[in-house]
Amino acid sequence: MESFLSNNQETPQKWSQISWEFLSKVRQNSPLIHCITNYVSMDLAANTLLAAGASPAMLHSSDEIPDFTPQVDALYINVGTLTAAVLPAMKSAAEIAVKHGKSWVFDPVAAGCSSFRLRACLDLLSLKPTVVRGNGSEIIALSRASMGDTKGADSLHESRDALEAAKSLAQATGAIVAVTGAVDIITDGIQVIGARNGVQMMQKITATGCSVTALIAAFVAVDPTHAFEATVAALSVFGIAGELGMQDAKGPASLRVNLIDSLYALDQVSILQHAKISPLS
Amino acid sequence: MESFLSNNQETPQKWSQISWEFLSKVRQNSPLIHCITNYVSMDLAANTLLAAGASPAMLHSSDEIPDFTPQVDALYINVGTLTAAVLPAMKSAAEIAVKHGKSWVFDPVAAGCSSFRLRACLDLLSLKPTVVRGNGSEIIALSRASMGDTKGADSLHESRDALEAAKSLAQATGAIVAVTGAVDIITDGIQVIGARNGVQMMQKITATGCSVTALIAAFVAVDPTHAFEATVAALSVFGIAGELGMQDAKGPASLRVNLIDSLYALDQVSILQHAKISPLS
Amino acid sequence: MESFLSNNQETPQKWSQISWEFLSKVRQNSPLIHCITNYVSMDLAANTLLAAGASPAMLHSSDEIPDFTPQVDALYINVGTLTAAVLPAMKSAAEIAVKHGKSWVFDPVAAGCSSFRLRACLDLLSLKPTVVRGNGSEIIALSRASMGDTKGADSLHESRDALEAAKSLAQATGAIVAVTGAVDIITDGIQVIGARNGVQMMQKITATGCSVTALIAAFVAVDPTHAFEATVAALSVFGIAGELGMQDAKGPASLRVNLIDSLYALDQVSILQHAKISPLS
Repeated sequence: MESFLSNNQETPQKWSQISWEFLSKVRQNSPLIHCITNYVSMDLAANTLLAAGASPAMLHSSDEIPDFTPQVDALYINVGTLTAAVLPAMKSAAEIAVKHGKSWVFDPVAAGCSSFRLRACLDLLSLKPTVVRGNGSEIIALSRASMGDTKGADSLHESRDALEAAKSLAQATGAIVAVTGAVDIITDGIQVIGARNGVQMMQKITATGCSVTALIAAFVAVDPTHAFEATVAALSVFGIAGELGMQDAKGPASLRVNLIDSLYALDQVSILQHAKISPLS
Repeated sequence: MESFLSNNQETPQKWSQISWEFLSKVRQNSPLIHCITNYVSMDLAANTLLAAGASPAMLHSSDEIPDFTPQVDALYINVGTLTAAVLPAMKSAAEIAVKHGKSWVFDPVAAGCSSFRLRACLDLLSLKPTVVRGNGSEIIALSRASMGDTKGADSLHESRDALEAAKSLAQATGAIVAVTGAVDIITDGIQVIGARNGVQMMQKITATGCSVTALIAAFVAVDPTHAFEATVAALSVFGIAGELGMQDAKGPASLRVNLIDSLYALDQVSILQHAKISPLS
Repeated sequence: MESFLSNNQETPQKWSQISWEFLSKVRQNSPLIHCITNYVSMDLAANTLLAAGASPAMLHSSDEIPDFTPQVDALYINVGTLTAAVLPAMKSAAEIAVKHGKSWVFDPVAAGCSSFRLRACLDLLSLKPTVVRGNGSEIIALSRASMGDTKGADSLHESRDALEAAKSLAQATGAIVAVTGAVDIITDGIQVIGARNGVQMMQKITATGCSVTALIAAFVAVDPTHAFEATVAALSVFGIAGELGMQDAKGPASLRVNLIDSLYALDQVSILQHAKISPLS
């Protein structure tokens, strides 16, 4: 992968080639991804990871994190169905991941919907996630670190409006920050990349956001020193799987089936043809 | 919607037109539905709400209900995987919903399967749900307020046998009561409407009952002063989606996919052609 | 069923006929299966049971097990998303099942992934499960009763390598032990049967292992005195459903849909044609 990743010159094909190389490496290495995620998304997130070639492990007991988390390739935390009971396990897993040099990826679902949740998200942010992926409302809420007015887990803000919030959050936390929407935006606080893959109807399937965050964790796991590129690649690959899946879809449920089938079957030609990734100024 | 809802004369098309108008309004308003539901049904219930145009929010922590529940358009509570740990959150959410003038809809899954569950259901009933939707066994168990002999969450009693129980329960609680089965029965304690949409095979898909109750919450949310009509409409619309979905189904899993796709695509003509709603004497 | 079950002579058709007879009996009796299972698998496990004709009940509160568990036809316990909070309910349910003469079937997901989980699995094993179903790593970990190095819930060991571990575990516990993999192995500690149905891609669908264990519980429920045969039959039937489902599958998500549809529609001819069951020496 080095040839492309070390090539600083932007070419039309650089990013699509990187996307393919990350997917190939996930299929080859089958990274073990420890997921502490919400109960709504467990099924789709696990199937997304399996379809991409990764190995999901859904477990969330504080009693086994000290044994288990050090063995994994990356950790994924999602606060969708957060409770006070599970929060200590999330914090413990994040701490152990960082201590053992493992990447962890954070999905702050509905970050601003309550002060309890916002505090929990800020606590988790302080534990140095490698990547944070949210919609516009969530990233703005986190960036403002104050009560937002998010409407459930859906995005009320176009992702481009959240660009400044994403840059600030990346600078403040050191994390790669991704804002998904009509255009997915990925920033490390300085560079900003836009990925334009995916279809509108994916928002009509619950847990697609959660699942692409899980996929980011798998991509980061196989090349932790290039977490920025891994995040761009995962968002583009998942979006392309959605575009291909849309071809025969009759609605959100068949799209969900096709999305996973397409992700499983995705080949180099499709990625090179469909990836739409470019710097945003 | 007033033209039809205020028209007291029964015409063949009155109810099918009302059903269409409710679905249209859900698509237009995208009501935010707070769901505290069982872990089996979360995926299908969320996807049902999304396919209908509503916005689901699956969260169940007592710590965030005081912040969050006042902002929602309606609340949905389902006791399928009830535990003592989550019951206080359910009660608190119901109380807050009522206090803020929001509708809440209750699914008393397997109400009679244990004395713990029956007591919990009676406690929740005392918090004034707008609508209660169950199968025959569940409604009879609640109505008798004594240990029933329900067989899991499946119905052992034909829904029509539960008619008297439903009327008593509606009169005792002030809720609209719906009993689903071969014929869905909806009553406010005086009026009784029968909806004959749906297909048998829907009972072979887990969480279809839970999901139609979630859909009732979305329909009630857009016109809380007509909760009776909203309940009739939601049951009929979900059943029609099942009938259309059955056309290409090869079994329960493809029916599940088609059901959601059909709900997403449902148009006025299909509803007017397929709705089978009429008063029961 | 007695004609075949009492026939000690091995014929090519004996096992396929037994498989069909078990499925028929499940469809006829619709056994009520109490499932205490992980949150990832609830949806697929419930839909598997429904497609086979059984009646799933997903509930896990200690407060209702004393009322509910005595009424069921069999119990299924799966530790996939184990926590200290749910473990007492699992133990209590297993004890009550045994006390009331009900079979219970155990899925020790990722048994060796932490010392907490391994101890919990050993505790549950001591409560006399009728059947234990795991992959090679899990059965080896249990058999060794020491920290294993399982990679998440996926199998790292070919199932045949686990044969000796399975026999030891069966002898030590008195349970039927099944190890699933390229060949499924079923043993009571003396006899060993191999079932070769299923397709590789089923491993790319989360919760297929959990779901076939739930199916074993349904098969055992209808003839508890032949738990060995029931286990063989369930594994073969689920595998055949996968093979038939694979015919039109484009990837793991469509295979998942087709698998359930095929299980629902499975007839005697298909089972007799496809079953691949034979003694292993």
